[in-house]
Amino acid sequence: MSGTLYGVGTGPGDPELLTLKAVRTIGEADVVAFFAKSGNASNARAIAAAHFRSGQIEEALDYPVTTEIHRHDETYKSQIGAFYDEAAARLAAHLDAGRSVAVLSEGDPLLYGSYMHLHVRLAPRYDTKVIAGITAMSGSWSQAGLPLVQGDDILTILPGTLDAPDLVRRLSDSEGAVIMKLGRNLPKVRAALTEAGRLEGAVYVERGTMENGFSTPLMDKADDSAPYFSLILVPGWSARP
Amino acid sequence: MSGTLYGVGTGPGDPELLTLKAVRTIGEADVVAFFAKSGNASNARAIAAAHFRSGQIEEALDYPVTTEIHRHDETYKSQIGAFYDEAAARLAAHLDAGRSVAVLSEGDPLLYGSYMHLHVRLAPRYDTKVIAGITAMSGSWSQAGLPLVQGDDILTILPGTLDAPDLVRRLSDSEGAVIMKLGRNLPKVRAALTEAGRLEGAVYVERGTMENGFSTPLMDKADDSAPYFSLILVPGWSARP
Repeated sequence: MSGTLYGVGTGPGDPELLTLKAVRTIGEADVVAFFAKSGNASNARAIAAAHFRSGQIEEALDYPVTTEIHRHDETYKSQIGAFYDEAAARLAAHLDAGRSVAVLSEGDPLLYGSYMHLHVRLAPRYDTKVIAGITAMSGSWSQAGLPLVQGDDILTILPGTLDAPDLVRRLSDSEGAVIMKLGRNLPKVRAALTEAGRLEGAVYVERGTMENGFSTPLMDKADDSAPYFSLILVPGWSARP
Repeated sequence: MSGTLYGVGTGPGDPELLTLKAVRTIGEADVVAFFAKSGNASNARAIAAAHFRSGQIEEALDYPVTTEIHRHDETYKSQIGAFYDEAAARLAAHLDAGRSVAVLSEGDPLLYGSYMHLHVRLAPRYDTKVIAGITAMSGSWSQAGLPLVQGDDILTILPGTLDAPDLVRRLSDSEGAVIMKLGRNLPKVRAALTEAGRLEGAVYVERGTMENGFSTPLMDKADDSAPYFSLILVPGWSARP
């Protein structure tokens, strides 16, 4: 009998935003696996570690590269593909031995999550269950206390990497929007929001629900820096009753 | 000293998808409030009731109307507006008396949630905290085991009430999509997905994470019925490594 694979959402950062199901699954699993940037501690592990069981097997899956090489570069693609293959093989060995494996995934496992790369490699062969997690988006608009969309509003999730005209077009054509992957794209995103008439009301959130997390109107935020854990929220629901 | 208002996400239906923070907040609140259709039990209450404290004050907020009158009808608007005003006043009386109030909200409070109507009425006047919840969307793609979007994918959340050309245009222009408010719109939505070349791969999920919840390829689902708790998922991430 093979073990069961669990994709476990750990939420956006606040350890209290783990679900009861995640806590139970993490505590019961034979093996707990988590991604980390090589040489760094794993964020997902830090969120969940209080619920690890003594004697549990830990599998640290250390990315060989993250942002040092551009992700459209063939070297990046081949290195990251080989890494996911090798990580899947390590977990498959546990599953083959009948051990259950919980893969921690920041936010929600199947929404922009690294777990997805293991899921597509292992779910066709093993009993697999996915436990939804609070997304970074939800954590961010909750921390900001910002009602996002209501009723028939359309909500669009956009990467800041889109070119400016595409950003303007999409921001002009959606009641609510979330813009991720800011970093060096922040000035371009701000210009696109301005051109789309959506700068006013836009909120910048950094490290939502994490320690030192904060939110501020985008108009009050400088373009100097926007770390990985930051995003911009554009609220819909303009015709409030 | 006024009490604190808490908007508490109860998640999509599975009581184990409550967060630790929601459980603690519900247990500690002086008052627990929840919406329900008049004459019906509250779904949010059912999800959270195991964590109520004995002696806690319960405030049932019963909608005077739901779908009997069209929501763009002026009668609906005035009745529902008066209902939210009255509900906010009931909770304000508790807050003024120094009692903390936890408003249960299915899914995530600030994403298409009824709680939003109380939030905009009360948050300007009272200390307010929002606790993110697992969305129905997350619960649905997790139950279906369907990787939704990855990397620079755009994700669009659409109501099935949009007209057919608008649906086709938007479905043709987004890697991932979630379509809500199906009901009588299901045949139109299916036709739009077909015209956009996105029918294959689309997944229908009904009552995701609830009892008797299930998912099926949309191609295998008849147009006969699609209850309130149903949605369609259109996965992105076509170029998997």
